[in-house]
Amino acid sequence: MASPPHTLIPFFSPKGVAIIGASRDPVKLGYGLARNLVESNYQGAIYFVNPKGGEMFNRPVYAYVQEVPNPLDLAVILIPAPAVPDALLQCARRGLRAAILCSGGFRETGPKGAALEEECLSIAQRYGMRLIGPNCIGLLDTHLPLDTTFLPPPGPPPGDVAFISHSGAICAAVIDWARGQGFGLSRLISLGNQVDVCETDVLAPTVADPFTRVLTLYLESVSNGRRFVEEANHTSFQKPIIALKVGRFSSGQRAAASHTGALAGQENAYHAAFRRAGVIRAETSEEMFDWARALAWCPPPKGRAMAVLTNAGGPGVTAADALEANGLQLATFTPETHKKLAKLLPPVASLQNPVDMLASATVEQYAECLRVLIEDPNVNGVMVILPPPPMDSAGAVARALIPVIHTAQKPVIIALMGDRMIQEAVEHFRASHIPEYRFPERAASALAILAERAEFLVRDQSPPPLFEDINHQAVQSLLERFAGDSSSLGNVLPQDLAMQILDAYHIPTLPIRLAKNAEEAIKFAHELTYPVVLKIDSPDIPHKSDVGGVMLNLTDAGAVKQGFDLILHNAKQAQPQAYINGVQVQHMLPPGQETIIGAVQDAQFGALAMFGSGGLEVEGLRDVAFALAPMTQEEAIHLLDSTWAGKRLEGFRNLPPADRQAVETILLRLGQLAGDFPQLAEMEINPLRVLEEGQGAYAVDVRMRYDQKG
Amino acid sequence: MASPPHTLIPFFSPKGVAIIGASRDPVKLGYGLARNLVESNYQGAIYFVNPKGGEMFNRPVYAYVQEVPNPLDLAVILIPAPAVPDALLQCARRGLRAAILCSGGFRETGPKGAALEEECLSIAQRYGMRLIGPNCIGLLDTHLPLDTTFLPPPGPPPGDVAFISHSGAICAAVIDWARGQGFGLSRLISLGNQVDVCETDVLAPTVADPFTRVLTLYLESVSNGRRFVEEANHTSFQKPIIALKVGRFSSGQRAAASHTGALAGQENAYHAAFRRAGVIRAETSEEMFDWARALAWCPPPKGRAMAVLTNAGGPGVTAADALEANGLQLATFTPETHKKLAKLLPPVASLQNPVDMLASATVEQYAECLRVLIEDPNVNGVMVILPPPPMDSAGAVARALIPVIHTAQKPVIIALMGDRMIQEAVEHFRASHIPEYRFPERAASALAILAERAEFLVRDQSPPPLFEDINHQAVQSLLERFAGDSSSLGNVLPQDLAMQILDAYHIPTLPIRLAKNAEEAIKFAHELTYPVVLKIDSPDIPHKSDVGGVMLNLTDAGAVKQGFDLILHNAKQAQPQAYINGVQVQHMLPPGQETIIGAVQDAQFGALAMFGSGGLEVEGLRDVAFALAPMTQEEAIHLLDSTWAGKRLEGFRNLPPADRQAVETILLRLGQLAGDFPQLAEMEINPLRVLEEGQGAYAVDVRMRYDQKG
Repeated sequence: MASPPHTLIPFFSPKGVAIIGASRDPVKLGYGLARNLVESNYQGAIYFVNPKGGEMFNRPVYAYVQEVPNPLDLAVILIPAPAVPDALLQCARRGLRAAILCSGGFRETGPKGAALEEECLSIAQRYGMRLIGPNCIGLLDTHLPLDTTFLPPPGPPPGDVAFISHSGAICAAVIDWARGQGFGLSRLISLGNQVDVCETDVLAPTVADPFTRVLTLYLESVSNGRRFVEEANHTSFQKPIIALKVGRFSSGQRAAASHTGALAGQENAYHAAFRRAGVIRAETSEEMFDWARALAWCPPPKGRAMAVLTNAGGPGVTAADALEANGLQLATFTPETHKKLAKLLPPVASLQNPVDMLASATVEQYAECLRVLIEDPNVNGVMVILPPPPMDSAGAVARALIPVIHTAQKPVIIALMGDRMIQEAVEHFRASHIPEYRFPERAASALAILAERAEFLVRDQSPPPLFEDINHQAVQSLLERFAGDSSSLGNVLPQDLAMQILDAYHIPTLPIRLAKNAEEAIKFAHELTYPVVLKIDSPDIPHKSDVGGVMLNLTDAGAVKQGFDLILHNAKQAQPQAYINGVQVQHMLPPGQETIIGAVQDAQFGALAMFGSGGLEVEGLRDVAFALAPMTQEEAIHLLDSTWAGKRLEGFRNLPPADRQAVETILLRLGQLAGDFPQLAEMEINPLRVLEEGQGAYAVDVRMRYDQKG
Repeated sequence: MASPPHTLIPFFSPKGVAIIGASRDPVKLGYGLARNLVESNYQGAIYFVNPKGGEMFNRPVYAYVQEVPNPLDLAVILIPAPAVPDALLQCARRGLRAAILCSGGFRETGPKGAALEEECLSIAQRYGMRLIGPNCIGLLDTHLPLDTTFLPPPGPPPGDVAFISHSGAICAAVIDWARGQGFGLSRLISLGNQVDVCETDVLAPTVADPFTRVLTLYLESVSNGRRFVEEANHTSFQKPIIALKVGRFSSGQRAAASHTGALAGQENAYHAAFRRAGVIRAETSEEMFDWARALAWCPPPKGRAMAVLTNAGGPGVTAADALEANGLQLATFTPETHKKLAKLLPPVASLQNPVDMLASATVEQYAECLRVLIEDPNVNGVMVILPPPPMDSAGAVARALIPVIHTAQKPVIIALMGDRMIQEAVEHFRASHIPEYRFPERAASALAILAERAEFLVRDQSPPPLFEDINHQAVQSLLERFAGDSSSLGNVLPQDLAMQILDAYHIPTLPIRLAKNAEEAIKFAHELTYPVVLKIDSPDIPHKSDVGGVMLNLTDAGAVKQGFDLILHNAKQAQPQAYINGVQVQHMLPPGQETIIGAVQDAQFGALAMFGSGGLEVEGLRDVAFALAPMTQEEAIHLLDSTWAGKRLEGFRNLPPADRQAVETILLRLGQLAGDFPQLAEMEINPLRVLEEGQGAYAVDVRMRYDQKG
């Protein structure tokens, strides 16, 4: 790892902090910063630096950082940008090795600012100093405690969610919003322009924080794709990471030589990277923090079967719908559970899932029924719905439920319907760290994320299996020869060369021979083994079938002769002027299914493999999925499971099951090839013909684009 | 229309209301009901009825409804279910023609309750009485005012959103939640078991309410599909309707004879019905009311190009993302706008869209920049983002923005980031009826709904064009003959019969002849015109191509002879034991695109037509769309525009544009056929071969299922 985290220690547990640019003027940000640090109750030494000197918050103001006594290991700099490099130099000479640059006016303002930023970086590199920022609002730790932001009070309540952000404004909003939503933050890290420390660097120190239970990330990009994946994967095994990745639509369309290239794009790369890293992706800010509370406070469910407990039908139906829409199921109760519920509830209550206790439900019925549901081995988690009860108090129900929930080993999530009338219940649940949401839909979404997290934790995490029978040297030589051959037209590899590369990685291909006459066709047919397919080969006839230029399943020399003649006859009838190269002879594969497999090199995350439905439709139907390459076996299976093309391989209607195993192996091998040779900018096997179970899969057509940049 | 709304007048503007079951015991619901009616400040006469007599709320309690004086035209009944029929009878005899049955204990509790409910209905029918309920929480009108619910106070604040609900509990939740979210209700109608008055009945009286600007519906189903569509369509031209339809996943899988049947299902029918009706469908409760506020308070945008005004980069990126994710675009400003913004903002501010005024943005800059953006002719609407400003007050910004927004003819929506620090701004915006949301994502979703609504209002609303050249009688006779023919096996129509039905509706078909020998094949080929296709016809050979059993593009008698022999040769090689009917001869169409067109009879909404990608993949890829049949031309175009199969018809890569016009006509004709003959339970043309522009489209294969129930 490039940045050993020990250099980051002064940021996360400083012994002494100096504020360069502390101000006594209450309208200045330098005042807010000083106030927040003092009021945060930070236990280390606090120093203020300002050439004006004097005194503030009962502490002396030093004119220069050189004058500041020990202990001191962190500077927070908030002075006009042009003065920052000099201040940084003073800090470095004072022996400081960590600084937070809160000042704006750097790269975000144009080339002049960018030059200032470079100057800061070069000073830092010269002295082995680490920098957070510039153009950030600093760091906040509610447990240490430490507050180096300049935001107006109050800061966030202490909690267990860490927030790491590329945007300072979002930090300010989240601090305020968290308070209203009733959850606290453990840490907040505003990264600003990331001249040095980036989002990946702070993952390890944050996951090590004992008060942090969930990491939330607001990302505009990642600094280094593969390093992020590695660090985030390491982190997410210990604690969940949720990311809101913005800038989804800014990438625009790229010109691509293949379907794979056209379909890849930044979003699919992020999707594949996050999946490998175990990063849960939120679509909206609210979703991110909805999920964070559930992940921080609930045990993981053992499956996706959930129970719903309600005192009214409508919210129960809404909840059942929302659970299914979020990929969860309604649990089927054991007979034992039915019996217990029947004893607790009136005869007209619904004992099926959702359990509707009716409007007359008492506080005791809520608590006892919840206990019964939790005890049912078929139930993996429970959503309890509390509509504002006509005559009863939601607060009393909350008080009765809380001890039951706290002793449960299963997640219980509350849907509290209403607003003013349920405030007491809301406060009880929040104080008890039980996630509550205003409507069943949000509660269902939180339960689904808990299930996703639980599944991630038990996912097969074996590394990508690398085949040793491949011939790396052969591909290397073929590519060197291609690159060195000045007669190569463009950067698309000839078909036979591409087929040879596949052969070197043991991806089965289907050779093609070009016959000039019927005798040659019969000879090739014999070599390739019967049955064979004949196809017209003419640059003027793109749609071979349409002119009767394809003959399938020719099983002997007589049929080949007849077929050859008929093809030429048909082609000449259809297009008398067409230039005809000859007739292609290919072994005819038994019936099978056609799929597409491809790979591209993503600028951010490197090799990226694709699987899905092929043919002309591939770009329109988008039945494709992506994984980082080389891929793990689990990822290969996921690509198959998450596309219709992959599901269909298991058989569909009249279609018999196809050789899914062979496709899985080819995916792994092509992924390995893409990982080994970044200069193979795009590869696409389309179609890959998948035969029936046990009979393999064959690359019928392949397309590769070379780019020496790779 | 079955129920002329004048019979509903007593519900919505009663002259006098009697509460049957009023109670002096404060823990009883009959007390809450009396209290709410009195405290609602209802201006008509209020009467209490209870056999115990006495006095409450300074009014006499009548022992029997017969004793209640005039004016009286509405009864609200809240007594135990078994006593309701008798009370209803008393009301009827007293001359009442409208009653709200709040009591529970009816159909929702089982057969005994259902019988009681039937008894109520028969009394009502005998006396020409209208009923709301039973098992509901009644009616509420904040402007009349009138409150016949028994819910604990406070009721909802007066507002402009009407809420019509199949669930009483959801009503209670929404009343309370609306208050917290800062919007009011005009009316609330809890429909309960709908023994008489249903959701469709109350649309017309609600849209007529001058205080209602938006109708919101919580639906578990609709009572009569086509009547709902008609009434809702009529309503939604006047005022927007948003519906949350639950029970999406309860329908289960139906056994179907065709792809169309398997794909149809309740959800697609609702989707098609809501689209025709102009009903906006919300996925979650929060979404419904988020949208309701925007629709109630904002003018419709003239297009989908939006501007974003922010004082920080991160929220701006989030907003831009969210706009695109919701199908909106970032407006491109005029040079004039750039010039004006440049004068107002510092040089490093971003004058592109999103406009980032930087953290230093003043109250005046917010107001002036917003004014500039609204004036830009390229801007259809604006999202203003207010993160909690470090040192400034969001309240002051709100006060400055409000007059600018109020004079704008374009929608302006506020994303207020944070919680406690923005409360003052929240209150200002709510009081001024300007929609504000906590994050840019929800604000973007609201802007998108405004655009959708604006597009609905200008949508071509011509009725389904009905072709007069069709031969209705021919189809009638064919179906009668089929139904009467005891030798008909099952209910699937023979292919030739199905083709004749299509012919009668002028849907072009491609006839097939079965040749027993080469001479016959040549004769048929001549009749059908060259070129032709030959296909093996054998029950034992389902995959004709795979055995070399298909010969395409045969252009003369010689080729047909050669092809016929080769097919038989191949078939015998492949499956020596196969029983062979002969060889099918069909005219060979020029190259084209293949699509699927189908229709089913939906239990709820009647005839439903489908269009999309055909072939074996149709069920897996689900590239299909549905419309009510017969469909309007606008709907036919929408089916083409909303599927990949339809977009592809305009040409894609090497694929030339196909005859979209022909497909549109066939869709309309098939829709008319499905509408004319409900006994055609399922129809499917798969494939419909679409030739190049101007050359038409042909049903190559068709499947029809007959069901006399239809």
